[in-house]
Amino acid sequence: MAEGRRVIGWAARDSSGHLSPYSFSLRKTEAEDVVFKVLYSGVDHTDIHVVRSEIMPANYPLVPGHEVVGEVVELGKEVKKFKVGDIVGVGCIIWSCGECFSCKSKMEQYCNQRILTYNAIDKDGRITQGGYSSAMVVHQRFVVRIPDKLAPEQAAPLLCAGVTAYSPLKQFNVSKTLKAGIVGLGGVGHLGVLIAKAMGHHVTVISSSEKKREEALEHLGADAFLVSSNAHEMEKAVNSLDYILDTVPAGHPLDSYLSLLQVDGKLIIVGAAPTPLQFIASDLITGKRNISGSFVGSIEDTQEILELWAEKGLTSMIETVKIDYVNEAFKRMERNEVRYRFVLDVGGSNLE
Amino acid sequence: MAEGRRVIGWAARDSSGHLSPYSFSLRKTEAEDVVFKVLYSGVDHTDIHVVRSEIMPANYPLVPGHEVVGEVVELGKEVKKFKVGDIVGVGCIIWSCGECFSCKSKMEQYCNQRILTYNAIDKDGRITQGGYSSAMVVHQRFVVRIPDKLAPEQAAPLLCAGVTAYSPLKQFNVSKTLKAGIVGLGGVGHLGVLIAKAMGHHVTVISSSEKKREEALEHLGADAFLVSSNAHEMEKAVNSLDYILDTVPAGHPLDSYLSLLQVDGKLIIVGAAPTPLQFIASDLITGKRNISGSFVGSIEDTQEILELWAEKGLTSMIETVKIDYVNEAFKRMERNEVRYRFVLDVGGSNLE
Repeated sequence: MAEGRRVIGWAARDSSGHLSPYSFSLRKTEAEDVVFKVLYSGVDHTDIHVVRSEIMPANYPLVPGHEVVGEVVELGKEVKKFKVGDIVGVGCIIWSCGECFSCKSKMEQYCNQRILTYNAIDKDGRITQGGYSSAMVVHQRFVVRIPDKLAPEQAAPLLCAGVTAYSPLKQFNVSKTLKAGIVGLGGVGHLGVLIAKAMGHHVTVISSSEKKREEALEHLGADAFLVSSNAHEMEKAVNSLDYILDTVPAGHPLDSYLSLLQVDGKLIIVGAAPTPLQFIASDLITGKRNISGSFVGSIEDTQEILELWAEKGLTSMIETVKIDYVNEAFKRMERNEVRYRFVLDVGGSNLE
Repeated sequence: MAEGRRVIGWAARDSSGHLSPYSFSLRKTEAEDVVFKVLYSGVDHTDIHVVRSEIMPANYPLVPGHEVVGEVVELGKEVKKFKVGDIVGVGCIIWSCGECFSCKSKMEQYCNQRILTYNAIDKDGRITQGGYSSAMVVHQRFVVRIPDKLAPEQAAPLLCAGVTAYSPLKQFNVSKTLKAGIVGLGGVGHLGVLIAKAMGHHVTVISSSEKKREEALEHLGADAFLVSSNAHEMEKAVNSLDYILDTVPAGHPLDSYLSLLQVDGKLIIVGAAPTPLQFIASDLITGKRNISGSFVGSIEDTQEILELWAEKGLTSMIETVKIDYVNEAFKRMERNEVRYRFVLDVGGSNLE
């Protein structure tokens, strides 16, 4: 395997998941490769699980990061659509076959041969390494352009969390004012509120407690707030919503959410709870209701949400930190103490 | 309440569910009413549950029957679209508000004010009585026309079982040859096979045992047969189907069926299992899969499936019996000893 430039990433060495500097080589730049210096990298909850080998076997040393924004420093000889100095982004996948039904339908995130951005086996047999790193090399098909009007740190969380909310919601981008519900106000959920509002929908945030009422209504601009444990409020809201985006990645009963949907309404699940989810068939049948799953988004979806953010002047709620804060950031995320996404200022950090 | 003609139905008097002759009056014929002599009445498994007060409180005496074919004998003065002597049909509902989203979207079966054909409270306060009866009176909006080319006994099972399969499948009536799965080969399932084949799809019947292989392939014309307990066969079929119609009205795990669906595939549930159904979120998420419910069908759907049966010369598999056999028919249905639908020859029976 031909070796390319030396880079420094922050890697986990074992299932403690503790990250520290790690020097490694990128592959030699191929004809369709884009090489970029990493500027910002969003921190996703998945990163924590993967570095600890909790949801898939970890290949150590393991550099996480799949919300990566960078500046192009080198291009393969066949790359025409980018130039050196462009600000670009990479999300959750860095390869797909290009031939299957999913790839041909612009849903390459569902390709059976997709290669994840980190902790996966690349075509050349290397383990892929993510964006908590000084530079990356990625095939041009999986590189998106960050719009000029969009601050690069703002772009980072859109590349996974944002597109995870946007991809299933774009089917609802119609001229009608739909009634939306968002369950779970975290990285994905808060962006879901902003996206649904940008589409002109009436947005209800559904939460298990009163705690996030002010946040939802005052800071994110939601139209209504519903506490799922308040039976009276829930009963009043039955049959009222066109769709619900459910971002909760833990086991929870679906029946009370399903009952909020009106006829032909859709419950979209994007949080992968490890335990089975349950529902009563008659809730689905008598209301012609639907439960769908959605996994991140396509490259086209990713480019679209970036354009949407730029065009509408939207602002994700992020906390930007240097890379040596990452282990502390993980701890705070586990205590749910972040509003709502950490973004690592990789370009402004001393990685050594 | 003005009384109309005297009729004789077969009614349950208590939760034993045993049916016997019962004399009662129809309402006086109103301006938009169609009065018809009942010729045939299909026997649905739901009838058994309702007469025994198992799924909703029963109002005794209770005359079941919601797959009713008859001959028009009288018309309200404002009815223009039918004439005396026409062969007509009535399915599961005999009223809806006409004003709500569902009604205006031609999905009146989901109207919150819908009135079921039997064991429901009609607008005048009477309890509705079904088609195991010498005659019925129904508002013209809920009466369909049986095509001339279609034998009336063939039409009966289409009015509930048939339209239950057809309504969710009509979205797939596209020029492409889709790959369909049908789970459960009963009243609804066997009609599902015929409908999917009529739409030109490649149909796989999925069953818990080998028993129905010959039936599925030889008699119903399915293209493939899959035994759900055969792990090897199921594994080979992963990601292969565009949709699955699941007609099983009992608790069953959904994961193995979901895995058969390809990206964006749809699992449609029409059998209301009383216990919760379970699935693993990641099966839905990573495959962009969907679970939907569907409840019978609209009046428009009902008219369409009747036309489809006539146009394609399709034959439902029915066993026609006299009304005094109905209690025995219930017993055989419980033992799963019917291929696949009993139809009561009400017009040819002595009801007294």
